[in-house]
Amino acid sequence: MIREGSHSDAPIGIFDSGLGGLTVMREIMRVLPEENLIYFGDTARVPYGSKSRDTIIHYVEQILHFMEEKEVKAIVVACGTASAYALESVRHKVSVPILGVVRPGVRAAAAATGNGRIGVIGTEASVNSGLYESLLHGIDPELFVKSRACPLFVPLVEEGLWRDEITTMVAKRYLTEIKGTGVDTLIMGCTHYPLLSDTIREVMGPQVTLVNIGVETARVLSGILAVQGLTKRTIDAPPVYRFYSSDAPEKLCRFGESALRMEIPEAVRISIEDY
Amino acid sequence: MIREGSHSDAPIGIFDSGLGGLTVMREIMRVLPEENLIYFGDTARVPYGSKSRDTIIHYVEQILHFMEEKEVKAIVVACGTASAYALESVRHKVSVPILGVVRPGVRAAAAATGNGRIGVIGTEASVNSGLYESLLHGIDPELFVKSRACPLFVPLVEEGLWRDEITTMVAKRYLTEIKGTGVDTLIMGCTHYPLLSDTIREVMGPQVTLVNIGVETARVLSGILAVQGLTKRTIDAPPVYRFYSSDAPEKLCRFGESALRMEIPEAVRISIEDY
Repeated sequence: MIREGSHSDAPIGIFDSGLGGLTVMREIMRVLPEENLIYFGDTARVPYGSKSRDTIIHYVEQILHFMEEKEVKAIVVACGTASAYALESVRHKVSVPILGVVRPGVRAAAAATGNGRIGVIGTEASVNSGLYESLLHGIDPELFVKSRACPLFVPLVEEGLWRDEITTMVAKRYLTEIKGTGVDTLIMGCTHYPLLSDTIREVMGPQVTLVNIGVETARVLSGILAVQGLTKRTIDAPPVYRFYSSDAPEKLCRFGESALRMEIPEAVRISIEDY
Repeated sequence: MIREGSHSDAPIGIFDSGLGGLTVMREIMRVLPEENLIYFGDTARVPYGSKSRDTIIHYVEQILHFMEEKEVKAIVVACGTASAYALESVRHKVSVPILGVVRPGVRAAAAATGNGRIGVIGTEASVNSGLYESLLHGIDPELFVKSRACPLFVPLVEEGLWRDEITTMVAKRYLTEIKGTGVDTLIMGCTHYPLLSDTIREVMGPQVTLVNIGVETARVLSGILAVQGLTKRTIDAPPVYRFYSSDAPEKLCRFGESALRMEIPEAVRISIEDY
């Protein structure tokens, strides 16, 4: 679908069901500050986390067609749900490197745990996929894994309640059981969750390592580009960041300015259903 | 689009962005117990409340094509957001009666208020549309109207937290300012909200009349059918209820059993993007 031999100066495509993937973009900007980046948020159909596997795969295929048109050199599925449900089904359809946020997060958690007890939080769809457990047990069948869906976290982030007593109360409801199992590592399996990390840390306690899947994904991406000779060569010009969404681009600009801590002068609306 | 001369035994089509419209269906079942009903929930693209006008109109047009195929005799837009944003734009495209939930709710509130002070709660899109204020002021320019978007109410309902301390805390946050303005009537401008009416009543106090837009819409629908000679004539057979959704029909069955207090043995998934 996407043609081979992409030039190393081509952009990297990053997408999410909505705006949470901007936390992954932020980490990629830190690790690979010279790369050109394209972000797409499927804000007309957000959230994916409560939808079915077939629907999510269909949506991701349309986004890959869009990324093909943009001639990206690599694709990051910056959405925990799409990574868990769609990545393996679509991987063979693209000829550029494509990576999700689940495997990098899983590897980091397996490396971080001291007591072999890992917690996983994510959307309903991500947790129901069972992918985190199966990948963690693929690394070490002895690992204890406790998962929990946290459906209200995404709307709380989108409502801007990043630090709020309501968010703390919801976090206690979701996390108390996981905390009680004695995990020493918690995978934040949704790209919105790093924006709640202060609250999550407060509830889980300072002894628990929080795995930010965006940070891990940016590191893995950097390695893949280096190994495949795709790292950007022209570094005299500043990087170009372009933003697209399927609805309300002004919201992306507003949310993105908080999440990326930079001004986003423009985002372009596209009809993703037509791809 | 939809052909004229629909038979009085044809079904009534009811749709919503998701499952909240089932509260409207429940009221229609009470007021018109003999009518055949078709329900469609656009669960693949829910929620509409944070999306733009253009996107919502596009989605509603696709749903009207689906309703056309089902040869309904009347259409109820059982979604506050779609009623506020799309109804006037699509009304001329259908030749059967079509009604939304906003106007019936507005008329009931204007009739109910004793002190001329009315509160309106709804999704971000509904409240931003300004339609409630403009319709209320069309009835009486002297009315005081205070509106507030409550974006977390829909996810709280869908998470099943209909009566919960978290929901109470969120409701206090949203409603305290409106309550302070001394309104004696509150329009629950989203079809999910009747499921939170116990909590909303607790926060607003017993002296405030809560307007359930579904109840008012069912009454208006009954009148329209009678006036236009569309009331069902064959009443010897029990009514047929059919359910469709654009994603996860099993969720509709599960949620619907709570919302309608009846068993829903089957819901059919359709590809609404193809309409």
